Amino acid sequence: MDARQLPLAQPTQPERADATRNRALLLSTARALLEQNGVDNLTMDGLARAAGLGKGTVFRRFGSRTGLLLELINEIETEFQRRFLSGPPPLGPGAAPIERLVAFGRERIAILAVQGDLLRAADEGPDARFVSPPRAAGQLHISILLRQAGFDGDVDVQSFNLIATLDAALVLYENRGEQIEMRRVADGWEDLVRRVARPRS
Amino acid sequence: MDARQLPLAQPTQPERADATRNRALLLSTARALLEQNGVDNLTMDGLARAAGLGKGTVFRRFGSRTGLLLELINEIETEFQRRFLSGPPPLGPGAAPIERLVAFGRERIAILAVQGDLLRAADEGPDARFVSPPRAAGQLHISILLRQAGFDGDVDVQSFNLIATLDAALVLYENRGEQIEMRRVADGWEDLVRRVARPRS
Repeated sequence: MDARQLPLAQPTQPERADATRNRALLLSTARALLEQNGVDNLTMDGLARAAGLGKGTVFRRFGSRTGLLLELINEIETEFQRRFLSGPPPLGPGAAPIERLVAFGRERIAILAVQGDLLRAADEGPDARFVSPPRAAGQLHISILLRQAGFDGDVDVQSFNLIATLDAALVLYENRGEQIEMRRVADGWEDLVRRVARPRS
Repeated sequence: MDARQLPLAQPTQPERADATRNRALLLSTARALLEQNGVDNLTMDGLARAAGLGKGTVFRRFGSRTGLLLELINEIETEFQRRFLSGPPPLGPGAAPIERLVAFGRERIAILAVQGDLLRAADEGPDARFVSPPRAAGQLHISILLRQAGFDGDVDVQSFNLIATLDAALVLYENRGEQIEMRRVADGWEDLVRRVARPRS
C-alpha cells in the first residue's frame, strides 16, 4: 500500500516543501561553515544558529551530527560525480581522455584541499576506503578513460594505483605532514597520468 | 649506576642466554604459525604449545598478544629493510636503480601476500599508515633510487605516489576484494615504475 495514495486529513504538501527548503538551507549553511571552520568545529547548535532555525529542526532533519556529516559527504560526492560524468569539459565529456584524467585528479585534489577532513572521516575502518561507492565510481571512471586513451597496460591494476594516489587521508598527510603544497600534489598527479598513459614502446 | 656492573649473587648470564633462545624460538614458531593459519588464528596459547614452552614464558616475553604482533611486525620490517639496503641485488646495491625499484615493489608485494594481514594491523588509525617508520624508510629508498635513475619529475610527490600503491590494506583489497592475482599486482608495479621513470621528453 502506497502511503502517497491515501487521502489525508492534514495535507502534507506544504510541510514537505518547508522540509525541502530547510534541508537545502541547512546543507548550504553547513558547507559554508565547513569551509570557514573545518569539520571539527561543525556542531548541530552552531548550524541551527547560523541557519536561523531551531535546534529541534536540525536534529529532526539529520538525526545526529553523524547523519549531517553523511549527508554532506553524499552531497559533495554526488556533485563531483555529476561533474565528471556529465559536466563541462575538460572534467566532463568533450575533452580528450587524458585531459579528462588530468582534470579528474586536479579537481579531486582541489575538493580535498577544502573538504578533505570531512571526506577522510567517511573512510575510517580497515576496508571502508576501498569499498566506498564514490571511490568505486572514481576508479571506474579512470579505467574507462584509460581504455579510451588506448592504454596498453593492465587497466584494472593501474586504475587501482591511480585512484590510490587520490586517497583523502594520503593527500592530506602529503600536504600537512610532508608540507607539500596542494599545487605540487596536483602537478604531480598530472605528470603521473601523462607518464603512465604514454605508450609502452 | 649501571646494573650490569654490579656483582650479583645469582649470575644472570645463563638466564639471558635462555631468554634469547626462547625469544628466537618463539618468533620463528610464531612466523611459521602465521604463514600456516593467518594472524587471526595466532594465540598465545597456541604459540606456547607449538613452541613447547609454558604459557607463562610466552606472556613474560611479549607482555600480550599485541606485544607479540608488534615484535613480529618489527622483525619482518627490519629484515626487509636490511635486504633492500644491504642485501644481494637486484633488491640490494649493485643493480641499476630502476631494477632495484622494480625489485623493491615485487618483494614488498610478495611479503604482503603472506604477511599482509599482520602488517595491515600495524597501519590502523587515521594517519598511522603514513607516519610509520617502515613506510618512511621505503619512501626514502624509492626517492633515492628515483634520483639515482635521473628522474626528471617531482621526486617527493612521485615517491609518495609510488609507495601509496604498496600500502598493505590496498594490496590486500586489490587481491581479495577485486580478485586481482598477486602476480598481476606485481607486474603492474613493474610497469608503473618503468612508465614513471622514463624521461619526460
